[in-house]
Amino acid sequence: MRVEVLERVLKVNDALAEEVRAALDRAGVVAINVIGSPGSGKTALLEQTAAVLHPRVRLGVIEGDIATTRDAERLVRCGVPAVQIETRLVGGACHLDASLVRMALARLRLDEIEVLFVENVGNLVCPSAYDLGEHVRVVVASVPEGDDKPSKYPATFARASAVVLNKVDLLPVTDFSMAAFAEGLRAVSPAPLFPVSARTGEGLGGWLAWVEAQRAGARRAP
Amino acid sequence: MRVEVLERVLKVNDALAEEVRAALDRAGVVAINVIGSPGSGKTALLEQTAAVLHPRVRLGVIEGDIATTRDAERLVRCGVPAVQIETRLVGGACHLDASLVRMALARLRLDEIEVLFVENVGNLVCPSAYDLGEHVRVVVASVPEGDDKPSKYPATFARASAVVLNKVDLLPVTDFSMAAFAEGLRAVSPAPLFPVSARTGEGLGGWLAWVEAQRAGARRAP
Repeated sequence: MRVEVLERVLKVNDALAEEVRAALDRAGVVAINVIGSPGSGKTALLEQTAAVLHPRVRLGVIEGDIATTRDAERLVRCGVPAVQIETRLVGGACHLDASLVRMALARLRLDEIEVLFVENVGNLVCPSAYDLGEHVRVVVASVPEGDDKPSKYPATFARASAVVLNKVDLLPVTDFSMAAFAEGLRAVSPAPLFPVSARTGEGLGGWLAWVEAQRAGARRAP
Repeated sequence: MRVEVLERVLKVNDALAEEVRAALDRAGVVAINVIGSPGSGKTALLEQTAAVLHPRVRLGVIEGDIATTRDAERLVRCGVPAVQIETRLVGGACHLDASLVRMALARLRLDEIEVLFVENVGNLVCPSAYDLGEHVRVVVASVPEGDDKPSKYPATFARASAVVLNKVDLLPVTDFSMAAFAEGLRAVSPAPLFPVSARTGEGLGGWLAWVEAQRAGARRAP
């Protein structure tokens, strides 16, 4: 019974997600769904990304949080057009869905955006099942969370187009094994892994190049 | 529609939770529901707790994970009776519910347990709505997650009987403000806050005393 209900919800969501993706395609916008635990550093990563790429690559951001508009404010301070969705206002949802993204899109000027980040609610589990109409999906994990995360949340990592491992500046003070993390990831996904520190800027080059390569122009190039 | 379905699910869950609580009460077992993000250190905290308290305080553990039996194995190595629930086997649930706890209880000898920890799936959001039949609820946050977590996940912290802030050994290498965290917590909850490091053992005294004080005997004492 509960599974049937979930399947119906997902079917409605998938139809809306296709609408969102079609609208983005018409506008030449590439959308990146960013999924990660609370405090993994999703917003910090987007701030650093904006600091280097924007406005050469014109970014936009939709921020999903249960409460507060802090994350959108952080991006607006970077000069990036940003819309906040507070999910507690729509029932406290633990993930974004395509209907929420569709509403947020109406508040952005898509003709001024090339790459749209959609930062999901801090949650490594529930967002995984919901297509938001994105083109690619990034999972952000972080060193203090431990090297076992791909093994313990396999469905989430399996659906990632890329994985960012944040907070590598904390490697010397934790028991994290990069080999164990990489091995756990390889068991469920061929996605590229970008070890970075959004705080120190370490290792951001590969990630930034990947983001730039997602642009609609780059994707369409022969 | 979605809200109505959720309310029905929660009503069924609440009835089962009362059954679980009654069974625990008959056996003189106090249950503690442990909620926290992936990698916040819930299992490490329970390992440290077992190392000091068990078997003087007779502990038992029910472990909730989407995949793997690693967490239960870690507790069994500490000599604590532990049962693992892998939620992917029952539909990939992002939280435990009372029906799962009821099933797990049947695999534990309750007459040998005084304090039963129920470690929820790593998720700061969804477990919050589900009564498992516990007597008290603990939220485990950690320093690398950032000092804004009580403000961003207010419903979860508001329902906590106690809050453990883990990984304080990382305070010197992060931008975490203890004052900001405590202020955010106070805005939503009067729960006691225990700053600890499960890795170094720092600050565990207050937490361990709190756990011991939850024992049914201690609770019933005049």
